[in-house]
Amino acid sequence: MNVDGKAYRTIWRAADGQSVGIIDQTRLPHDFVTVQLTSLEDAARAISDMLVRGAPLIGATAAYGVCLALRSDRSDARLTQAYETLLATRPTAVNLRWALDDMRAQLLPLPPEERAAAAWRRAAEICDEDVGICSAIGDHGKDLIAALWDAKDRQGTVNVLTHCNAGWLATVDWGTAIAPIYKAHDAGIPVHVWVDETRPRNQGSSLTAWELGRHGVPHTIIVDNVGGHLMQHGKVDICIVGTDRTTAAGDVCNKIGTYLKALAAEANGVPFYVALPSPTIDWTIEDGLRDIPIEQRDAREVSHMTGRTAQGDLVTIRLTPGSSPAANYAFDVTPARYVTGLITERGVCAASREGLQSLFPQRRAVAAS
Amino acid sequence: MNVDGKAYRTIWRAADGQSVGIIDQTRLPHDFVTVQLTSLEDAARAISDMLVRGAPLIGATAAYGVCLALRSDRSDARLTQAYETLLATRPTAVNLRWALDDMRAQLLPLPPEERAAAAWRRAAEICDEDVGICSAIGDHGKDLIAALWDAKDRQGTVNVLTHCNAGWLATVDWGTAIAPIYKAHDAGIPVHVWVDETRPRNQGSSLTAWELGRHGVPHTIIVDNVGGHLMQHGKVDICIVGTDRTTAAGDVCNKIGTYLKALAAEANGVPFYVALPSPTIDWTIEDGLRDIPIEQRDAREVSHMTGRTAQGDLVTIRLTPGSSPAANYAFDVTPARYVTGLITERGVCAASREGLQSLFPQRRAVAAS
Repeated sequence: MNVDGKAYRTIWRAADGQSVGIIDQTRLPHDFVTVQLTSLEDAARAISDMLVRGAPLIGATAAYGVCLALRSDRSDARLTQAYETLLATRPTAVNLRWALDDMRAQLLPLPPEERAAAAWRRAAEICDEDVGICSAIGDHGKDLIAALWDAKDRQGTVNVLTHCNAGWLATVDWGTAIAPIYKAHDAGIPVHVWVDETRPRNQGSSLTAWELGRHGVPHTIIVDNVGGHLMQHGKVDICIVGTDRTTAAGDVCNKIGTYLKALAAEANGVPFYVALPSPTIDWTIEDGLRDIPIEQRDAREVSHMTGRTAQGDLVTIRLTPGSSPAANYAFDVTPARYVTGLITERGVCAASREGLQSLFPQRRAVAAS
Repeated sequence: MNVDGKAYRTIWRAADGQSVGIIDQTRLPHDFVTVQLTSLEDAARAISDMLVRGAPLIGATAAYGVCLALRSDRSDARLTQAYETLLATRPTAVNLRWALDDMRAQLLPLPPEERAAAAWRRAAEICDEDVGICSAIGDHGKDLIAALWDAKDRQGTVNVLTHCNAGWLATVDWGTAIAPIYKAHDAGIPVHVWVDETRPRNQGSSLTAWELGRHGVPHTIIVDNVGGHLMQHGKVDICIVGTDRTTAAGDVCNKIGTYLKALAAEANGVPFYVALPSPTIDWTIEDGLRDIPIEQRDAREVSHMTGRTAQGDLVTIRLTPGSSPAANYAFDVTPARYVTGLITERGVCAASREGLQSLFPQRRAVAAS
């Protein structure tokens, strides 16, 4: 998408052919800064410190991290080290393991001298595939928004609520949950987005609001507490969120607080959709509540916050009493029964084993094995 | 309660007999500062700028605001002006109107020269009544916590989740939702409190955490998104929240986000209680969703945040992109069907017309008129 008139992806092979460019998302919305990654450690740190975030972008960064690891040493041992280092950066996102498994499967059979070139080629393919997937998700999701617009006799506005950032910044381009919004907006449907702030890291108010603003999509930031009230009063037509991992039965793991919005949507008859690229599906598990480990992050993300002063300085402040502990669960699981449908690159399906298998029939054997 | 070893209420008649002391709650948890109110305008500003907040304390402050208004002019016109000025400070809390109606009814029949002394006397009574009510709420709520403790065979900890600040800082003393926690803790029951941050004004992480810490009650701050996840995993034994206004049918208006926690409690079989002094009941309305106006506050409360830097300075920072609008709904309504029970100064009852009338039978005629 465009930033100040220049087309960007969130990750790219640099002009030197040996390093990788990313946008430092920890600096948004205050500063637009790109960073050059030159080593395995750079890539691992970019993921763990959340310079890059969002399940698809984490996968792409891990793929490029393997490329960087092979710059000096193309041995099996180095490949294994890269795999393990990158896998350890974040515990929840399934795309991370998916991308690393893919890279290892492509590279390990090759003679070491061929691995570097093959790694760069495959990482670029993974990125291009992600862009294609997200664009297709946008097309399918746009049809849902168009149907809501028709149901309103094309009057007023279609109000979409989203949580966290599942926009182009979370992927290589387009986004997942936000892709349908961009496609609907570009097609002339009047869309307005309620943007959940998404504490504690504020990905909604800092990233989603920023990218919607750059694209010209009308939006309003709300704190995470507000969505239920809006749904009670008919101010939300559809919820669309992303996911970090979806089980074979349609349980959805996403940013902490997603579950509360799903409960409110069900209680108020608001359709609740989850947009996901199929690599986000974990075909090996069914029960998300039981089987998905929930990352706990530093309590400092709750007790402190960074922003810009009126004088323009970026400052970190403490919000809480110094003696009060804080807990920081990063994700929650929304059981499939609260999900109206899953928007995938192959179309929209029910959030169930049957729904997913109708779109991904080749997975039947895997899931049953 | 105690602050640095000294007993405080949240509001008091100053030693000069002509002014009123309060704690400036906008400075907590970073600084403990008291402020002297000397005029009607001081009192109105203390309420509208939220130096004082919490429905019972707002009522008490309004009562003392009438005293301050009568310092120079004890006429009917002045009394009316004080009533209207104070009533306009906050639109939602029913205690505000209750206290002002009470003061006017007491003072208007008196000859002007008797009004000042009567006003100070009545304001002090309103405060003492509030302390008695909150202490009784604490006793009744403590019994609920004790029963949960017994049901656990007195093993482990009773985990209470609360939202916003309904502690002693929200009342004259003791608090409403937190009073049962103080009483249980003091009785030796091991209580742990999950403290919702409560965006956008962070009354949970700044006020509830502060006062629990001062009293030595174990607690953990969480962002508002976390409660559902905790309830899914059995980490919450009971929710107790306060209320700004409860309808005659048991619908509960409280800080924005309360409704989402009530939905999660219902979905996970967690008891959800609301603690309320009876002046918080609005006997004139039934349907909270339809009949309670929801205050919308300055968007700057969402886009900006104030806290302390590592150097010790209090600094306000912007969190959001400058071009992104924000909406700031301050309250929501939890329908009575999601409320397990109401904890009042007369005992615990069902959240229904019948439940409330069983404890407050004299209100039957009023409600039916």
